[in-house]
Amino acid sequence: MTTTTTSASAPATGRATRPVIPAARYGERLANARAATAARAAVALLIGVGADLRYLTGYNAMALERLTMLVVPGEGAPFLVAPRLEAMKATGCPAGEAGLVEVIAWDETDDAHALVARELAARTGPGAPSPTRAGRDMAPALVSSGLWAMHVLALHRALPGREFGLATEVLRDLRMVKDPDEVTLLRLAAEAADRVMVGIANGPLIGRTEAEVSREIRERLIAEGHDDAGFAIVASGPNGASPHHEAGERRLQAGEPVVFDIGGTLGGYASDTTRTIWIEGPGHDRPPTAEYRAVHDLVLAANEAAFEAVRPGVSCESIDATARQVIAAGGHGPQFLHRVGHGIGLEGHEEPYLVGGNTEPLRAGVTFSIEPGIYLEGRFGVRIEEIVVCTADGPDALNRVPSGVWAVPG
Amino acid sequence: MTTTTTSASAPATGRATRPVIPAARYGERLANARAATAARAAVALLIGVGADLRYLTGYNAMALERLTMLVVPGEGAPFLVAPRLEAMKATGCPAGEAGLVEVIAWDETDDAHALVARELAARTGPGAPSPTRAGRDMAPALVSSGLWAMHVLALHRALPGREFGLATEVLRDLRMVKDPDEVTLLRLAAEAADRVMVGIANGPLIGRTEAEVSREIRERLIAEGHDDAGFAIVASGPNGASPHHEAGERRLQAGEPVVFDIGGTLGGYASDTTRTIWIEGPGHDRPPTAEYRAVHDLVLAANEAAFEAVRPGVSCESIDATARQVIAAGGHGPQFLHRVGHGIGLEGHEEPYLVGGNTEPLRAGVTFSIEPGIYLEGRFGVRIEEIVVCTADGPDALNRVPSGVWAVPG
Repeated sequence: MTTTTTSASAPATGRATRPVIPAARYGERLANARAATAARAAVALLIGVGADLRYLTGYNAMALERLTMLVVPGEGAPFLVAPRLEAMKATGCPAGEAGLVEVIAWDETDDAHALVARELAARTGPGAPSPTRAGRDMAPALVSSGLWAMHVLALHRALPGREFGLATEVLRDLRMVKDPDEVTLLRLAAEAADRVMVGIANGPLIGRTEAEVSREIRERLIAEGHDDAGFAIVASGPNGASPHHEAGERRLQAGEPVVFDIGGTLGGYASDTTRTIWIEGPGHDRPPTAEYRAVHDLVLAANEAAFEAVRPGVSCESIDATARQVIAAGGHGPQFLHRVGHGIGLEGHEEPYLVGGNTEPLRAGVTFSIEPGIYLEGRFGVRIEEIVVCTADGPDALNRVPSGVWAVPG
Repeated sequence: MTTTTTSASAPATGRATRPVIPAARYGERLANARAATAARAAVALLIGVGADLRYLTGYNAMALERLTMLVVPGEGAPFLVAPRLEAMKATGCPAGEAGLVEVIAWDETDDAHALVARELAARTGPGAPSPTRAGRDMAPALVSSGLWAMHVLALHRALPGREFGLATEVLRDLRMVKDPDEVTLLRLAAEAADRVMVGIANGPLIGRTEAEVSREIRERLIAEGHDDAGFAIVASGPNGASPHHEAGERRLQAGEPVVFDIGGTLGGYASDTTRTIWIEGPGHDRPPTAEYRAVHDLVLAANEAAFEAVRPGVSCESIDATARQVIAAGGHGPQFLHRVGHGIGLEGHEEPYLVGGNTEPLRAGVTFSIEPGIYLEGRFGVRIEEIVVCTADGPDALNRVPSGVWAVPG
């Protein structure tokens, strides 16, 4: 492992045109979802606002308390229940425009959950028997993972006796494997986040609070084309030992590292990258300590080992184990206190999770983070995170900011 | 009703110091929540990430897939289950720091839902009989409204046979009435949004796309101190007829109105304000039409009538009805296609909802939007929205941007 002090220069950017998912693809996704729902012997998918809805229809609805629900029956045509004041917007979503889903509007004083149950019954019968689930008289309904409890409980009441499961059971296989347009969007998001990381590293940093720097990161993410700047962790000195530290009033100073973990979404697809940057002062008189370099090198070695292990057929848990073995061999096993990574796409965290116990094999087109870390309580932390796509030939990193020891004047 | 053409000048700002909710108040809130849970004969509140958690503990946890859960038993001490990598952060939240909640960390390969069930059982017994709910052998568990379905279903499995309800049943009464610090935070958020509205109205607007202007609004909200810029509706010309229009590629032009509905959170508290602004061109040669003025005046009259009707004891539905009667009398009843308003606080939309059927009486300290609108499909829309606090003496508007007909050069 060579330690290189990387100067803060902008990464090479290949600004591809931002692709638009063509409407026909929503038709394919809906057909695949319907087939998988039928194969699971479920009555329907009940998809609330969120990534599943966007994946299946292109509809980026606001996450509010009024029910918006895409219903994908195992048999029959999908329909989209939407509040009246969003009916124009729902009808104008890609799948709506293409006539792939019928939009059914409800008024403010209607019972939207009863409407879902009524429309579903009209299409499938009130308790269509499940051919493959002997002993149960009603096929299950599969709700989206992020559906709010208020809707889950109301749907329970509106569909009495119906067993509930998660739509992820049938959608995970579809959503995990990204098509080339999705990979391009993830790459554009990653490159935008890279530019923000380099801009922030160029300072100023010393004397500013974490919260101030965090705010600048979020402004830069938006300025770089992000739809939203979901998070901007700035964890200076001892705060770096808390992986999800919330940027606060501590001021950055020379002679310590700072963990920057930043991201949001661009064209609906998530960015998420982490660099740990040492502030050595304008006179370069507070350079990285030997201990910091050793810990950073160990995290980087774990990151690189996990990266090199990526190929189709390798299990998620084995990628985690690869990184963990490197860090454990370096004597810091207990301080690597989280999984090595998570899937990424329309959600910042999604299937597959690279964690002990997940035997899911990687496939070409699966995208995820690799982000080992070491956290020394009361002292400092180091984490290095890239987004990676598994290709038929092995790993491809979407983030291109160098990951060697990075020291800046601040 | 006088029509005034308002010039775009900055509203008077009384920049109060941003208050911090003192830790002792979380103790009071937790005690109140516990008492209400016991009175409801529920076994516990099961509170995931979101506004209820923040209200009770000050903990602003990231909304991710790992379970974070505050458990408030009807009998016994509250505890906070958190993923190991966020344990430092959870322990450092106001209620954690003050020793009001015990933090229990789980590791990546643990079953967090089983942990919740186990800890709850250890404190309350596996199926503590409910003294006031004859015929049921298990007191219900009350989950937060926004808890994700993946957690609801997993908790169902971890707490077999346990009936589930919504924590809102017991928390709504507490959260609806804001204390003076909360009102101050809402006022600061409203004033920041007001400054953004005035800045945007000052242009440039003509020739820019809705999406570009929306992006600028979000940048300005952050620059004005917002934690996040949740939404920035820019609905120009005919797009204004879709109340929740998503800003798109249409370019703003002279001789038409634009609906701006913007907001986010500041210090955790939400802003949400709407103005409809007419672009008359730099030569003022495309002034508001008589029809536009009439529609705008009608919406403003409805807004003002609803505002004047606010006082303790008046029902939510009657405020809605007051606005609706004005618009119906003006011949546009069917085009006012949503409720008149919603509560606001730690959430942009929360209890109470000002909608037909909601007989909840207003109380001093309740904060909410008043936002009537008229939507003429294919042509234009007008909405005017303020945030209002009900005081013992009647209504107080937190937004101070004038609401008469507002025409700008663009």
